[in-house]
Amino acid sequence: MGVMKVVSVLVFLFLCVTGCTSAAPGRRMRGRQPCKQLVLYFHDIIYNGKNAKNATSAIVGAPAWGNKTILAGQNHFGDLVIFDDPITLDNNLHSQPVGRAQGFYLYDKKEIFTAWLAFSFVLNTTDYKGTLNFAGADPLMNKTRDISVIGGTGDFFMARGIATVMTDAFEGEVYFRLRVDVKLYECW
Amino acid sequence: MGVMKVVSVLVFLFLCVTGCTSAAPGRRMRGRQPCKQLVLYFHDIIYNGKNAKNATSAIVGAPAWGNKTILAGQNHFGDLVIFDDPITLDNNLHSQPVGRAQGFYLYDKKEIFTAWLAFSFVLNTTDYKGTLNFAGADPLMNKTRDISVIGGTGDFFMARGIATVMTDAFEGEVYFRLRVDVKLYECW
Amino acid sequence: MGVMKVVSVLVFLFLCVTGCTSAAPGRRMRGRQPCKQLVLYFHDIIYNGKNAKNATSAIVGAPAWGNKTILAGQNHFGDLVIFDDPITLDNNLHSQPVGRAQGFYLYDKKEIFTAWLAFSFVLNTTDYKGTLNFAGADPLMNKTRDISVIGGTGDFFMARGIATVMTDAFEGEVYFRLRVDVKLYECW
Repeated sequence: MGVMKVVSVLVFLFLCVTGCTSAAPGRRMRGRQPCKQLVLYFHDIIYNGKNAKNATSAIVGAPAWGNKTILAGQNHFGDLVIFDDPITLDNNLHSQPVGRAQGFYLYDKKEIFTAWLAFSFVLNTTDYKGTLNFAGADPLMNKTRDISVIGGTGDFFMARGIATVMTDAFEGEVYFRLRVDVKLYECW
Repeated sequence: MGVMKVVSVLVFLFLCVTGCTSAAPGRRMRGRQPCKQLVLYFHDIIYNGKNAKNATSAIVGAPAWGNKTILAGQNHFGDLVIFDDPITLDNNLHSQPVGRAQGFYLYDKKEIFTAWLAFSFVLNTTDYKGTLNFAGADPLMNKTRDISVIGGTGDFFMARGIATVMTDAFEGEVYFRLRVDVKLYECW
Repeated sequence: MGVMKVVSVLVFLFLCVTGCTSAAPGRRMRGRQPCKQLVLYFHDIIYNGKNAKNATSAIVGAPAWGNKTILAGQNHFGDLVIFDDPITLDNNLHSQPVGRAQGFYLYDKKEIFTAWLAFSFVLNTTDYKGTLNFAGADPLMNKTRDISVIGGTGDFFMARGIATVMTDAFEGEVYFRLRVDVKLYECW
């Protein structure tokens, strides 16, 4: 191999380093291992006209056939609920909260239970200070559902990822608990 | 240093250049060609008090001057609509659905028709299983409008992109059809 | 060209490959300097039953104990407001608008003032044509709050970043002005 050949390979390589690479993002498979992962629970107690003190959420939008203290017929289609729910590290409602889940969910299908969620985790623990923002469809009849982590702030600066949501408990139409397995694939 | 050693370093470098790097996210212009593109239609039939059977959406929030069965005056300003709309591959409402568009839209301007959207495509076809999540302003008087693809799951794992939305049909105040040209620029 | 020269080029190349580029998105710290930054103000005048002409927003969802012309008790918990607010370059409501902030906010806590926002900046200036989409928690009692820029279109094609929000004025329960310091960390 002559020196000229080495040089020409070098030139090609150099051009490639400055020119071809990275055009790449949006084009290539990246690692599918999370760069950060955390499992949290949040607890929702919906206002039903009698539990003002304990309620953490309230119906604020309802369809023509609904009202604000009872989830509507037809699988709650058209109900919009605002919440400020405690987040805990385990599945116990009475554990010390590590933050609040704040935002809304809505029921969006007549035939079966299906919801759509947009909310934030506002965390303030020794481990994490910051917020994670979520959005996505929540087909409640599936054991697990994936929604998007669309951004983050503070310790979660610019984060993106997937949250796998699971209904961990469901008691009548007043209380439910979601287990959220947050997997971040973009960490800054 | 022998030529073979130079060559082996070169080989390593070359592998790394084409395999490991991906320069400067957040800093440089990346390719503006979509890594994935799909065109879909969705169909919205709003509840008007008489079409309970066919309706796929319902007004659930309205301003002081509005109600839940007629879109409000002033260009529907203040109406909030939850939907579960069939998605089709062509512009025919009666084609076999390939998924559901689920979420909400709201009308947000008094002077002209303008909306804001946040929803998911929940797809379950032979080609695609997964969800795409969208959010953005929808100035309806423009022929085409661009909204953001803010995330995805399943076959659309971690996707980001732009969706160009076009009103493909509009019949009275009960039915409309949107053509959505989804262009993903981040594919994982 | 001597072997040493080849080697030194190789060393440079190698350093650049491992040092200048930024391998494995989702895995490493990236630059924390914004690639684009802009400061804007927007102005919200809420409909109270008497100011139809000037109002830029309206309550469209309210809890059982609320109504559509007065923000609800308990720190407005459960109120959902749709807005189409003028954006200005300075803090003067009467300055020439450079666009509109469109979307919604909701109050989501009984004990203190806390909100959640999802909206777009629709900009049409000599400098910028395009939209920025935002979502996040807005704990109003904090002097500054960070929300996520979850996407953009036009001149903000595929943008991501953080917006630091500050209440710049608050007059009774009818008018407020937000200062938004938009910092984009992903520019395409």
